[in-house]
Amino acid sequence: MDFSSDTSAPAHPAVIEAIGWANTGMAASYGGDDITARLREELARVLETDDFDFWMVASGTASNALALSVLCPPTGSILCHEEAHIERDERGAPEFFTGGGKLSLLPGPGAKIDAAALGAALANIDEAFVHETPAKVLSLTNLTESGCVYYPGEIARFAELAKAKGLAVHLDGARLANALVTCGATPAEMTWKAGVDAVCLGLTKAGAIGCELIILFGDTRAKFEELKARAKRAGHMPAKMRFMAAQAEAMLAGGLWLKLARQSNDAAGALAEGLVRIGGELVQPVEGNEVFVRLPDDIAAALRAKGAKFYPWPGGAYRFVCNWTTRASDVEALLKAL
Amino acid sequence: MDFSSDTSAPAHPAVIEAIGWANTGMAASYGGDDITARLREELARVLETDDFDFWMVASGTASNALALSVLCPPTGSILCHEEAHIERDERGAPEFFTGGGKLSLLPGPGAKIDAAALGAALANIDEAFVHETPAKVLSLTNLTESGCVYYPGEIARFAELAKAKGLAVHLDGARLANALVTCGATPAEMTWKAGVDAVCLGLTKAGAIGCELIILFGDTRAKFEELKARAKRAGHMPAKMRFMAAQAEAMLAGGLWLKLARQSNDAAGALAEGLVRIGGELVQPVEGNEVFVRLPDDIAAALRAKGAKFYPWPGGAYRFVCNWTTRASDVEALLKAL
Amino acid sequence: MDFSSDTSAPAHPAVIEAIGWANTGMAASYGGDDITARLREELARVLETDDFDFWMVASGTASNALALSVLCPPTGSILCHEEAHIERDERGAPEFFTGGGKLSLLPGPGAKIDAAALGAALANIDEAFVHETPAKVLSLTNLTESGCVYYPGEIARFAELAKAKGLAVHLDGARLANALVTCGATPAEMTWKAGVDAVCLGLTKAGAIGCELIILFGDTRAKFEELKARAKRAGHMPAKMRFMAAQAEAMLAGGLWLKLARQSNDAAGALAEGLVRIGGELVQPVEGNEVFVRLPDDIAAALRAKGAKFYPWPGGAYRFVCNWTTRASDVEALLKAL
Amino acid sequence: MDFSSDTSAPAHPAVIEAIGWANTGMAASYGGDDITARLREELARVLETDDFDFWMVASGTASNALALSVLCPPTGSILCHEEAHIERDERGAPEFFTGGGKLSLLPGPGAKIDAAALGAALANIDEAFVHETPAKVLSLTNLTESGCVYYPGEIARFAELAKAKGLAVHLDGARLANALVTCGATPAEMTWKAGVDAVCLGLTKAGAIGCELIILFGDTRAKFEELKARAKRAGHMPAKMRFMAAQAEAMLAGGLWLKLARQSNDAAGALAEGLVRIGGELVQPVEGNEVFVRLPDDIAAALRAKGAKFYPWPGGAYRFVCNWTTRASDVEALLKAL
Repeated sequence: MDFSSDTSAPAHPAVIEAIGWANTGMAASYGGDDITARLREELARVLETDDFDFWMVASGTASNALALSVLCPPTGSILCHEEAHIERDERGAPEFFTGGGKLSLLPGPGAKIDAAALGAALANIDEAFVHETPAKVLSLTNLTESGCVYYPGEIARFAELAKAKGLAVHLDGARLANALVTCGATPAEMTWKAGVDAVCLGLTKAGAIGCELIILFGDTRAKFEELKARAKRAGHMPAKMRFMAAQAEAMLAGGLWLKLARQSNDAAGALAEGLVRIGGELVQPVEGNEVFVRLPDDIAAALRAKGAKFYPWPGGAYRFVCNWTTRASDVEALLKAL
Repeated sequence: MDFSSDTSAPAHPAVIEAIGWANTGMAASYGGDDITARLREELARVLETDDFDFWMVASGTASNALALSVLCPPTGSILCHEEAHIERDERGAPEFFTGGGKLSLLPGPGAKIDAAALGAALANIDEAFVHETPAKVLSLTNLTESGCVYYPGEIARFAELAKAKGLAVHLDGARLANALVTCGATPAEMTWKAGVDAVCLGLTKAGAIGCELIILFGDTRAKFEELKARAKRAGHMPAKMRFMAAQAEAMLAGGLWLKLARQSNDAAGALAEGLVRIGGELVQPVEGNEVFVRLPDDIAAALRAKGAKFYPWPGGAYRFVCNWTTRASDVEALLKAL
Repeated sequence: MDFSSDTSAPAHPAVIEAIGWANTGMAASYGGDDITARLREELARVLETDDFDFWMVASGTASNALALSVLCPPTGSILCHEEAHIERDERGAPEFFTGGGKLSLLPGPGAKIDAAALGAALANIDEAFVHETPAKVLSLTNLTESGCVYYPGEIARFAELAKAKGLAVHLDGARLANALVTCGATPAEMTWKAGVDAVCLGLTKAGAIGCELIILFGDTRAKFEELKARAKRAGHMPAKMRFMAAQAEAMLAGGLWLKLARQSNDAAGALAEGLVRIGGELVQPVEGNEVFVRLPDDIAAALRAKGAKFYPWPGGAYRFVCNWTTRASDVEALLKAL
Repeated sequence: MDFSSDTSAPAHPAVIEAIGWANTGMAASYGGDDITARLREELARVLETDDFDFWMVASGTASNALALSVLCPPTGSILCHEEAHIERDERGAPEFFTGGGKLSLLPGPGAKIDAAALGAALANIDEAFVHETPAKVLSLTNLTESGCVYYPGEIARFAELAKAKGLAVHLDGARLANALVTCGATPAEMTWKAGVDAVCLGLTKAGAIGCELIILFGDTRAKFEELKARAKRAGHMPAKMRFMAAQAEAMLAGGLWLKLARQSNDAAGALAEGLVRIGGELVQPVEGNEVFVRLPDDIAAALRAKGAKFYPWPGGAYRFVCNWTTRASDVEALLKAL
């Protein structure tokens, strides 16, 4: 079984089918097509509001970096966790897209920002002191890089603090579906109702081929034309956008993205339980589709001998990622075989 | 009939099928999959060499800007035609990706660079004069923005001049298939054999969903790791790359991309002939799948009344673009109906 | 005699003295000192308004690029003459400081923008067409790169056209004093009264060591904090700013900058007259301190033999630049000696 | 007495005089003058080598950012202390000049990088893993932001570790003179002999008006033309460079910069001793011209009442900076008066 990454999974058949259906006749390029129009209506239902604009890109890095580039000026900084994907795994994309903005790193367990550290960082901002780079954005990740969730109430509290100091709030939701399922929250509760200005809603890990939505809410919509211009100059305005819209539509229809996230979360739960049973020690709570676990060497070797794929993680543990194709029953069978 | 753009066309069924076939089981992300490996072999056959590296992106703008960013330093400039896509239609992407490099514009009919102007620009380079931005790259477009071709011999001549002054040679081949068909040239003759260091080989307009290949040849391969790093930080390293490789494989297999380009070129030929017959005046030679034509107002109106879609072009003419779905017989029927 | 450049001239003794006077005791860094405060008052008198903010930098390139960076977003372009200093002689500084903005070049004799070309460029702007880079700034240079002047009425007319399309107006005034003297205009008439939003008022060529003022007027003052932040991150916030303020104060006091500009203009007038007399042919009208002239080879050689220094200029002419130390009587003596 | 900053101090009279002497007749612009040529010879003596190139800029931020921009590509990162000036006080200049490079922060007392943390960071570099930003430069600051010194042996050890992993070594020497005096080291021992590739040798705080030298050694000289091009496009190539060279020459002549640094170090020593005597508690060892000290509130108030100026510092202490005009005897008089 392959627990290396949820991006190694195939796409859900509904996504492939939707691409086939989209492939009929001529259609306006660059988002002017019917499917994109229909997607907007679906999104309005999913988000329980019409007060939004959105753009589609093929990678999470593009999604985050573009969103941040309209929220943070080149002379500003972005508060984020020191293990955030935007800091660790995007090769400087936020710095590139913002034109040289900075990331200001905050600590906290589970890759969740520590409230006191956030408070101190916010208190420290001095716009009038030209030598230092003032924070302009708070970026949260849900699921975090350690597979933990922020509940809507936590996001709302952090957003409130940030906004009191004039910061915009960005949510990196590459695994938002997994977080929603765990929290039992609606997309609306997790985003605009909690004070999020821009969410990067990921569908690729959830089961699309490559489709991430950048969604701007409320006042931040004033930045939408700039977002499009920046998307264009970054090469993130592919001509035949109907095929991206088709993916998103297929994933959102009937809550497929949430159903698939639940499957992968369930598989992760079963996996965690089983790994603990055979001597593993969880180093993070399992709140989504990822398991971070310390394993005795012989157990790790035995799992690999049975064909399991998984990566070591900084700090001496292993990361196991379940995806929408991972079945809890297969996980149990694997573990029983040990 | 819709002559608005070849990017409004659907994808070829073989591309859709290939995506379906690619959707089986887990596969390594970021280009580590089997299809990408197979594609490399196919490309070696198509290019008649193994001395290349390649990357895939979803848009022509990304393709050009990334290629240029490894060829041109931020303190250098890129020689290109004043109507080149990279100057006119990419919203400053080359400037963004190069970190502030400049474009230096050259004139010439048919959006082809005038040889004398190129010679003068090259003669003018003075690396020692720090105040001016020295040209570091020559960028050619084939088909040009006016639908004209450079023959391999022309490219070779320009490349030789450029290289004598230390410039790298970039070829924007968003419509390379159309040019190849017209010239009766092989991809090798049009690229590395002619001195091209980096080609952006477009498959999207030719019939893919969204797939453009950046190919580095020979010594320029030394820049490949930098290219990948820049692709990553620009968000152009989508996780599930197998689906992009599948598109490319389907398009290249059996020369499908060339076959489809021939169809669209043929349709354009028929269209041009027909439009001239009914009073149109060609403003550019028709050497690919595009027709630039001045039309009497009543004729233009009558075409639109029959359902034809086409755009006005700067300078008072109209642009008609044929795509792989445009059949010469349909074009003839339309014109006969007038 | 050295006609190579007005930047090869020494500083006026009053500037040196002012630096000496400024060198007393401790003073707040970064512009918080008394001399900078006094300079603001002097500037208010010179500019006949208090509705401005200003910053000081040591080079014209820094001055232009910083000013442009608060007027033009990375997704916008700057309309300027194709021979403008910002295009030809600043090594891509505007592209660098704006984060990848473009320059859009306009033709016109005397390095003055042609009104019809400006009109066409402005008419062409289509904000809604995301693929093209819309112009956001009109940049004028006075004196132009060919030593010609814009009269305040011309600037006002161009500014009005530009503002009707939402553009900001920038004036590169590296040789503003020379232009003012020729036009008999006040600084106010040439800048804010004519619709200029930001002027780079040069004092270095006029006789300072290195001091250029960036002045923002009216609504553009809202960008002043951003300007300072950008100055800081570009290294253009030297600690001991009192010494720069002292230079500016010395140059402005009693209209010294204008007096010196008149001297250099007068010398250029005498030089032009003399060069024509001995067979030269002016290729530009002499409207400031520069003479662009075609010379018979033997005359050029004879001048050089007499110790005159001057540079060839693109197009086959020579450029002679007079500076504040060039005396008309010396010029006449030199020419008589031929 | 004003202990707010060494940048609030005046320039040394020898610097002012040198500017006066430099102000004679015409001189080639942009560093082509005689004084700059003479300065090179003086520098060769000071540095005990001829294997270097140098450039002059007016601010420390410009100096660091330019040096770093030729050492670190946009896809790389710079290892530095988490309190380094380049991280805290330069408003994102390194990110701007490198085109979006990152800073990777390391801890350590006294704002000196902890050796174990450096070792771990170096061990962590994985060039092949495209998602993470590999470190390309180690940047050290001497004096550190906490007024502590690195001895040449420490620099050599860190440089050796860094170079073993292919990193370049940058030394921010805004207060290098103070460090040299404390260590009893020569400039050569502290820089190229210790493995430093590029040093920013500061003269402004030491007593100049505004003059910082960027010096490239050995193989790094290959980057000198790029450095100049970047200086030009950043506006750091002021025309009348002779006046900057004159400052440097005056400061270096006869070791004036070191003599003045010794004075300020001595004053800081006296100050530290006195402050401890009256109840202060040093929070950093005093190894240069800065004193970081915790003071009882009544003592701080009494000092202020006597006219002393000093700033609070993050962490609850105060920073006192002595400069070349601060006399140890005055410091003692002040403290005795309490």
